[in-house]
Amino acid sequence: MTIPANDPALRSWVPVPEGSDFPIQNLPLGVGAWNGVAAVPLTRIGDRALDLSVLAEAGLLNGLGLAREAFDAPALNPLMAAGKAGVRALRQRLSELLRHDNPVLRDDNTLRDAALVAADQVSMHLPVVVGDYTDFYSSRQHAYNVGCMFRDPANALLPNWLHLPVGYHGRASSIVVSGTPIRRPMGQYKTAPDAPPVFGASRQLDMELEVAFITFKGKALGERIGTGEAEDRILGLVLFNDWSARDIQAWEYVPLGPFLGKNFGSSVSPWVVLLDALEPFRTASPEQDPPVLPYLRQQGAHHFDIALEAAIATGDGRETVISRTNFKHQYWSMAQQLAHHTVNGCNVRCGDLMASGTISGEAPESYGSLLELTWKGTRPLKLHDGTERRFLEDGDTLVMRGHAGHGAVRVGFGEVRGTVLPALPYL
Amino acid sequence: MTIPANDPALRSWVPVPEGSDFPIQNLPLGVGAWNGVAAVPLTRIGDRALDLSVLAEAGLLNGLGLAREAFDAPALNPLMAAGKAGVRALRQRLSELLRHDNPVLRDDNTLRDAALVAADQVSMHLPVVVGDYTDFYSSRQHAYNVGCMFRDPANALLPNWLHLPVGYHGRASSIVVSGTPIRRPMGQYKTAPDAPPVFGASRQLDMELEVAFITFKGKALGERIGTGEAEDRILGLVLFNDWSARDIQAWEYVPLGPFLGKNFGSSVSPWVVLLDALEPFRTASPEQDPPVLPYLRQQGAHHFDIALEAAIATGDGRETVISRTNFKHQYWSMAQQLAHHTVNGCNVRCGDLMASGTISGEAPESYGSLLELTWKGTRPLKLHDGTERRFLEDGDTLVMRGHAGHGAVRVGFGEVRGTVLPALPYL
Repeated sequence: MTIPANDPALRSWVPVPEGSDFPIQNLPLGVGAWNGVAAVPLTRIGDRALDLSVLAEAGLLNGLGLAREAFDAPALNPLMAAGKAGVRALRQRLSELLRHDNPVLRDDNTLRDAALVAADQVSMHLPVVVGDYTDFYSSRQHAYNVGCMFRDPANALLPNWLHLPVGYHGRASSIVVSGTPIRRPMGQYKTAPDAPPVFGASRQLDMELEVAFITFKGKALGERIGTGEAEDRILGLVLFNDWSARDIQAWEYVPLGPFLGKNFGSSVSPWVVLLDALEPFRTASPEQDPPVLPYLRQQGAHHFDIALEAAIATGDGRETVISRTNFKHQYWSMAQQLAHHTVNGCNVRCGDLMASGTISGEAPESYGSLLELTWKGTRPLKLHDGTERRFLEDGDTLVMRGHAGHGAVRVGFGEVRGTVLPALPYL
Repeated sequence: MTIPANDPALRSWVPVPEGSDFPIQNLPLGVGAWNGVAAVPLTRIGDRALDLSVLAEAGLLNGLGLAREAFDAPALNPLMAAGKAGVRALRQRLSELLRHDNPVLRDDNTLRDAALVAADQVSMHLPVVVGDYTDFYSSRQHAYNVGCMFRDPANALLPNWLHLPVGYHGRASSIVVSGTPIRRPMGQYKTAPDAPPVFGASRQLDMELEVAFITFKGKALGERIGTGEAEDRILGLVLFNDWSARDIQAWEYVPLGPFLGKNFGSSVSPWVVLLDALEPFRTASPEQDPPVLPYLRQQGAHHFDIALEAAIATGDGRETVISRTNFKHQYWSMAQQLAHHTVNGCNVRCGDLMASGTISGEAPESYGSLLELTWKGTRPLKLHDGTERRFLEDGDTLVMRGHAGHGAVRVGFGEVRGTVLPALPYL
């Protein structure tokens, strides 16, 4: 009997520790390598990664419309060629294979031992080859905060902000997977309004707490994707740290937007949580006033209730949580973002990544960047070891986590982390 | 005896019509398909394309350090893995094979007929798989003109402009090869400053006359490329039309830069003119005042004297040249652009594309966009058929051409063209 993969009553024969982000109701996709095994697609259950190439080789993933070679690829893109229906069928099959009462894999010692590996032994890779990366700016509180700090509190939101999901193109080449260290960038910035710019290591290195979605292939150049069909083009979500050098950004960004202040690195969590796994956590989209233009209208709930947090771990490994926020604090939904992105005919490819922009809630402790949390460095944060932070210091590790649900079913993202390396000296 | 590939006295046994962009001193690289032959790397001589896969199969490209499979690939990226030295050796070998006094290919009727094809029978493809696309803003006159129109003539150049090569990330997925039609985008724009935005087909569709360079693999994330080594990371140049919808752009671009006003399509010429072929056309870089920061300093001549023009062809096929300008009208050199792009550790991949931004000279007839040529639509241009243009109309074909040199040796780009299709109705 088929039981839907989201059924809260489902249990797996693989033990899942209490509070795990990865119960059988999640089944995210990722790519990893270990112990001589080249990088292959994986899913995750509890503290184990499950090697999909082993399952495919054993014929357990037949009949899903997925190419056999896709399970040997070092990125999810070939699997994603099967589109939403193919990936949905894969998740359902994985759910059946891992169900407590299914003996096929459970009781085949050889196959099971070949397919299951301790997650902490796996070196996770970037899950997809990213084509284009777009960053939106969809949290109203974040846009308001930035407007207050850099422009005019009385007119903090720019005139276009409530009419369209403002976004810009970012750098795909420097997107890295969790665990990759981030070198403090050097660049030009001003130390006083009337002084000439200087060159040096950024003194205002920041994080941005974001969530990003990864797309299936969209439509041909010149066509558009409507809000009603947009979610069918979305594979799933990852946590996203859009590292930012505020001093470099402030000097360079007029009039063409952020560039070197952002493109030195962006970090993603390794497990792509499928949009299907987040279905139970849909929540109403906010009322939008003024009303949006017809191409941005949407029916139903297109936001997702995902609790997010950011922490700084110092050299001793201990963490201080500096922000607790929620993905639902977006004004614009992913469906609206994708519809807007393509309304002019812009094409979307398999593996494109679109990030939310910093997610800040109304409460100051829910702001998603140090810029906002310390109000441009004027209100330093105190860490567990008594030290203060205005911005990130060399050796700091930034950790972001996220999960939906609680109690019986918790669907989580694991974490994205990165440690700040000192700037490379300029010779 | 080896004769350098740039020697002006070189002649080929392949006839080269007078005034051709493609004498033996050029030998650009491209990718094309014809008559049942899948897309492969090519060079061009006179009115003929030369199939490099045929030469490689015959063993004529051995000993260059280039992988055999690279000559069967539908993009130049695998060839480019050999770096500057490999591509330089390839061009020298092609020069030797095509020299008037070399009988190897000239007198082998079978091989010659298999390798040479009429260029007008070849369907040219995008020459490289583009990783990231960056657009700079490096013409001082263009930045000044835009500043005058949209901001303040007294402070037309923004404070950062003379200190760094302003640039932003664009959309790679919608870069298309010459000949691909461009659909007029729809989107949001304002019809009056105080009116709410409306949704419709762009009424201010424009071209931007640019030149773009294509990179070899750069360095690892976190490292930087200096001005002195930057040109070693550049394969060559193409013409670039950065189609722009001014009304959409004007409404959306604050504060994060251009997005839907640009990402519906960018057109490139199909033949990559190697930087080596442009060596004889180096010209002094402009004096920069204020002096630039040390990481942007450069020794010697890093600009290139390349005449550029743009024309509008109407439905009858006849053309009116609307702009004549020159690539040397850049304030920032490619070496400076690449050094700036990587000074923060941003990594560059094989096949990245970096465009100059609109190239406008000081004379009004040398402005590189309709926005400037018609001064925001206030001074319409008259075409050969008596009609006027403020911006592009449906059915217009925009053609850009470029070449260096004159007389004996002319190294040219051919052209990039695209025809404007009517907007796709919104249903």
